[in-house]
Amino acid sequence: MSTPASSGFSVETIAIVGVGLIGGSLAAAVKQRGIAQRVIGVGRNRNRLEAARIAGLIDEGSNDLSQAAREAKLLVVCTPVDRIVADVRQAAAVMPTGSLITDAGSVKGAICESLQDLADGPVTFVGSHPLAGSEKQGFEHASPTLFDRKLCVLTPTAKTPAGSLQRLHRFWRAVGMETCELSPADHDAALAMTSHLPHAVAAALALTLDPEHHRLAASGFRDTTRIAAGDPALWTAIFQQNRPALIQALTRMEEEIASLKSLIVSGDAASLQKRLQQAKTGRDALDTNLSPGFDS
Amino acid sequence: MSTPASSGFSVETIAIVGVGLIGGSLAAAVKQRGIAQRVIGVGRNRNRLEAARIAGLIDEGSNDLSQAAREAKLLVVCTPVDRIVADVRQAAAVMPTGSLITDAGSVKGAICESLQDLADGPVTFVGSHPLAGSEKQGFEHASPTLFDRKLCVLTPTAKTPAGSLQRLHRFWRAVGMETCELSPADHDAALAMTSHLPHAVAAALALTLDPEHHRLAASGFRDTTRIAAGDPALWTAIFQQNRPALIQALTRMEEEIASLKSLIVSGDAASLQKRLQQAKTGRDALDTNLSPGFDS
Repeated sequence: MSTPASSGFSVETIAIVGVGLIGGSLAAAVKQRGIAQRVIGVGRNRNRLEAARIAGLIDEGSNDLSQAAREAKLLVVCTPVDRIVADVRQAAAVMPTGSLITDAGSVKGAICESLQDLADGPVTFVGSHPLAGSEKQGFEHASPTLFDRKLCVLTPTAKTPAGSLQRLHRFWRAVGMETCELSPADHDAALAMTSHLPHAVAAALALTLDPEHHRLAASGFRDTTRIAAGDPALWTAIFQQNRPALIQALTRMEEEIASLKSLIVSGDAASLQKRLQQAKTGRDALDTNLSPGFDS
Repeated sequence: MSTPASSGFSVETIAIVGVGLIGGSLAAAVKQRGIAQRVIGVGRNRNRLEAARIAGLIDEGSNDLSQAAREAKLLVVCTPVDRIVADVRQAAAVMPTGSLITDAGSVKGAICESLQDLADGPVTFVGSHPLAGSEKQGFEHASPTLFDRKLCVLTPTAKTPAGSLQRLHRFWRAVGMETCELSPADHDAALAMTSHLPHAVAAALALTLDPEHHRLAASGFRDTTRIAAGDPALWTAIFQQNRPALIQALTRMEEEIASLKSLIVSGDAASLQKRLQQAKTGRDALDTNLSPGFDS
């Protein structure tokens, strides 16, 4: 396994499109680790870009994606999933030959399919999904350590050139992440279970809470619903882009709840305890596997 | 509102039955705050009691509940919900007239009904549920601050003498908690939604996770399933004792999941976003109401 320190990745100018929690944290990590000489943040709101610059996250802010793209050899699109394709297209049209574009979107199938022609273009697009984040929004919550030791999934297609792919692995490792590869479809099926389903479940659970019971909700309820505080627009776009896999995941969840409920209805304590033990064993295993795998 | 410092509660000897996370934390809080001159911990395992004594949580350990009860004017039963009634009965049979017994069980209806004759006996039982805890087990995780600023629900019945009830409020406030009162049935209906349902949901979600996806489960999945690591035997007993309310809560959750799923199936992004916004608003309100209410 290649460690960040030995990844040897550097670039003169990097452009990061969308300076929110993810883009801002990425910019901060790139600057802190000296990966680029110059970090351009691209966004719509001039005041917020200037605030991000003053906070030391980026070297320059720009409202002009095309202009920033022209000056960068690496561009990372950190906008919501329903804007990624358009942002990548706009950048690819003007970036120098040999440049690399990636993204940080939570769904990969639709994006990678739309951008298939760029998989081996003069400017190459390869999908990425850094598995890091929070229910919080905005660069104010950005941290250069957000990605430390987390896993980044790269989703190359059959056409992705090996050189671009290896360069992208080196970039994310330089940021502090471990990396692996999945096909866009496998990524989406897995993330439906590990990320999109928990979000839907947390939202459904939050919706069951009667305001008059607020003060009786202790840490268990709070933890279980924490991610329901995420941005509804972002998550709507994610759910829309991963519909078939998420519907399957929700059906699986419905089956598990129905199964637990029937054990409670029947009063079969021994089977209920066995099932709760299986749940605990599964959850405990997750904590003993804290370090993400590596596979590239 | 009465603050712990002004609650003026003190007792010569307190017996705490069950020296695990809750009992151990309670013992530690009582000792740290100088509420009792002597804390007797009652348990089955002599070695663990001795370890709890060496850790400074209790002054003495005893395997003999009756003997400890004879020497205490206040006794708190912190054993699993399916053992509380028997432990209270055993203590009530030998404690001096005018003594007070309470518990820390997560379900109150069945316990308070079984012990109705003690509501105004020479030794009085009043139910309590301190809303504090963790998925961790054992006195090794005990902390004198576990109860700080948390809410303790007292569940008196019509027969509970006002003096005993006020004394119990003063005790939990002295430990650092805020207190309120609910009927046993209202407590169980509310906790089914705020505590037992989230546990069942976390367990069901943990059961959906395929081991091969472990490394793709980021903080969202981990938070949402954290409480599924709780003790299966404890939770089976809780679920068994609160069956009707929990079944109703699970039905409510099934409806919320089905409703979200149908919005995802139909692709109605506007309605989906509105629903996720409602979930977020509900969850955000929980954080702005961090301080529990007070009502006694």
